[in-house]
Amino acid sequence: MILNSTNIDFRAKLLLESFSSELRLLATDHQIDFSLTTNEALALAIFEAYRGSQRVAPNPCVGCVVLDQHGRFLAKGHHEFYGGPHAEVNALNGLTEEQLKEAHVIVTLEPCAHQGKTPSCAKTLANLPIKKVTYGLKDPNPLVAGAGAEILKTAGKEVHLYNPAGYDLDLTQELEEVAEIFLFNFRFKKTFLSLKWAQSLDGKTALLNGESKWITNPLSREYSHFLRSIHDATMVGANTIVEDNPLLNIRMENVDKKSKIVIFDPYGKVLVKEKEFQFTEVHQSENIYYLIDELESKRINPTKQFESILESKVSNIIFLDKTKGFYDPLKINDKLFDKGLKSVLIEGGAKTIQFFLKNCEWQRIYTFIAPIILGQGQSYSEAIVNHSMENKIRLNYSKSFSFGADLLLSGISGNYN
Amino acid sequence: MILNSTNIDFRAKLLLESFSSELRLLATDHQIDFSLTTNEALALAIFEAYRGSQRVAPNPCVGCVVLDQHGRFLAKGHHEFYGGPHAEVNALNGLTEEQLKEAHVIVTLEPCAHQGKTPSCAKTLANLPIKKVTYGLKDPNPLVAGAGAEILKTAGKEVHLYNPAGYDLDLTQELEEVAEIFLFNFRFKKTFLSLKWAQSLDGKTALLNGESKWITNPLSREYSHFLRSIHDATMVGANTIVEDNPLLNIRMENVDKKSKIVIFDPYGKVLVKEKEFQFTEVHQSENIYYLIDELESKRINPTKQFESILESKVSNIIFLDKTKGFYDPLKINDKLFDKGLKSVLIEGGAKTIQFFLKNCEWQRIYTFIAPIILGQGQSYSEAIVNHSMENKIRLNYSKSFSFGADLLLSGISGNYN
Repeated sequence: MILNSTNIDFRAKLLLESFSSELRLLATDHQIDFSLTTNEALALAIFEAYRGSQRVAPNPCVGCVVLDQHGRFLAKGHHEFYGGPHAEVNALNGLTEEQLKEAHVIVTLEPCAHQGKTPSCAKTLANLPIKKVTYGLKDPNPLVAGAGAEILKTAGKEVHLYNPAGYDLDLTQELEEVAEIFLFNFRFKKTFLSLKWAQSLDGKTALLNGESKWITNPLSREYSHFLRSIHDATMVGANTIVEDNPLLNIRMENVDKKSKIVIFDPYGKVLVKEKEFQFTEVHQSENIYYLIDELESKRINPTKQFESILESKVSNIIFLDKTKGFYDPLKINDKLFDKGLKSVLIEGGAKTIQFFLKNCEWQRIYTFIAPIILGQGQSYSEAIVNHSMENKIRLNYSKSFSFGADLLLSGISGNYN
Repeated sequence: MILNSTNIDFRAKLLLESFSSELRLLATDHQIDFSLTTNEALALAIFEAYRGSQRVAPNPCVGCVVLDQHGRFLAKGHHEFYGGPHAEVNALNGLTEEQLKEAHVIVTLEPCAHQGKTPSCAKTLANLPIKKVTYGLKDPNPLVAGAGAEILKTAGKEVHLYNPAGYDLDLTQELEEVAEIFLFNFRFKKTFLSLKWAQSLDGKTALLNGESKWITNPLSREYSHFLRSIHDATMVGANTIVEDNPLLNIRMENVDKKSKIVIFDPYGKVLVKEKEFQFTEVHQSENIYYLIDELESKRINPTKQFESILESKVSNIIFLDKTKGFYDPLKINDKLFDKGLKSVLIEGGAKTIQFFLKNCEWQRIYTFIAPIILGQGQSYSEAIVNHSMENKIRLNYSKSFSFGADLLLSGISGNYN
């Protein structure tokens, strides 16, 4: 697998930049004879984990690295797709008993204790002649956390939860981020909502006349398809459909993933004539969801035909709830989660972004910043009023990455953990 | 000299990131035995040149690296301060004839041909047993360009103008940038105007109520003092003085530079009562310039006292000219240049920035972007109206650098070369 900047998570690329060129070689599948510290091995395991991000949902991304008794790199692996072998199994695959004698297995998440779709990794590891297992994060389920470690200890293995003390770089946040969708789903029983937009330096997403082609460059736009591919669904507002008639599919070489889409369409503007839009040509009906205001949409479309559309699509319609006269974003999230959408990339337009932003109902922001100034235009924050700097919206653990002259800035909400 | 991110140009730091760790060691004054390609030596010379940026004006920043006959690093030097020895002399200083036998001298700008404040560098080099001189840029004066090279050729030296062919990284733009103020002054007989501001992700420089403390973090604010130190003067609008009462001096450890200041004060609001503001305590009167609208300021201050202030400060007052009813930024630039100000850092407020931005009268933008969203607020672009994406303002050759969680983005105007 050749890795460029638009088919692997930018955080994986950034992570490697802090490490040696040897680690970068190992990450890009060169087999070299090289000794790694536990921290380096864990960084490599995190990088490896990111490779699964398009296909493991609703499982977490997990990566694993195996070092021999002298600390030399032996193998790496990751959880590749939902239902497939876990990272540990993929890393161990093909190694001999001889190689594994006194080996050290480093894995980003605690090895699973129980048989699910695949056998228990902790039990598999317990039966090998390895000496030591280091894992990055405890199983997030407090009821089973430590169970995998316990199996290994009982089998006489050394077991360590990752401890960053003594290393230049603390990988704790990286461990959280590579599994962030899964962890958030698990901890809060909510959908992980990512906001994504392209903006000028002065924060504009389009000119006043709506023109926005193109603020960002082709590399940024290519990475946007990668972002779609690591979420269960892509959401846009009805106006975006009406004005731009987008396909909303994932257009990446060698990626054959059918993304789901969600249309924020309170008045049924799109729903009532969906066949007029091209997205229906590339998405199967069951993969298209609508957020609808039942009362308002029926008022605006007082026809039998609309009634029957609502009925026929009932399993794909999420009715909006109002709290104090406004749509309630928390309830939208609950209902998206109930529909099995574990992560949604909200792409626009500016008003849809702003709705979630203003209501603090988002987990991650991805913003592509082009080195241009547009002046007056559309913005994702024009309806947000702060009377004090204390109320500013902060992107935590923000990181940036260059796509040509454009910058991607991404960070997480401070409100969720 | 210990280099951190706030006492050396960020472009110097960025440049090194593209090269080997050995080059980074050499750049930070470690003496190691290491062979360099011409491109690496030139990159190191550019890095070196940046070290002079606070003290060489109106001269250019110039750096020099000397390699022995086997291509091994011997020495480096830079032009340190106006009137002091040139880069070549500082690099050669202390090297023996033996070391210089068949040596290769790499310098960012063509060695000077004629004696000025210091002896001709071309002649100095011609008398040494060196073999080869590579220079990055021709002397920008077309009348003397090539004269330095000619002296060297006549003395039997190999002389090369830098040719990026065959190297991964083309350093031509870096060579331009390290001497950009000098080159611009020379080519256009105009003052190099840099715009600098701090903004939120959504392009706001303050809340609607004016609150802006603090958008950016202490590291960014520290680097702002470095930016002041590489310009002849700092400009702000009168409202910034009235509202914030800033000192506007350079507050950096080990830097004892007296910056000049320019106050965009059309109505004489500040001038009429300047002693009330603290900037007068840290700047000598002759270092304070005012941009004044003669007619309007006299209309608003119809007193004898104001007349006499204008008279007494005449050499430090720049009267604003109007073209079609608006202040003419081109004429402001001409007059700043006539006053001997070769570079001005324009720091705000938003309206002052916007005046120069809107009128395309700027050469470089420095914007610190904090990973926060402010919503409604003051902006440097709110009065700019574009009806087509083609009219967007573009920052060319933009580069970014992290100061903690803040990003500095900087680029040059496409309009000036």
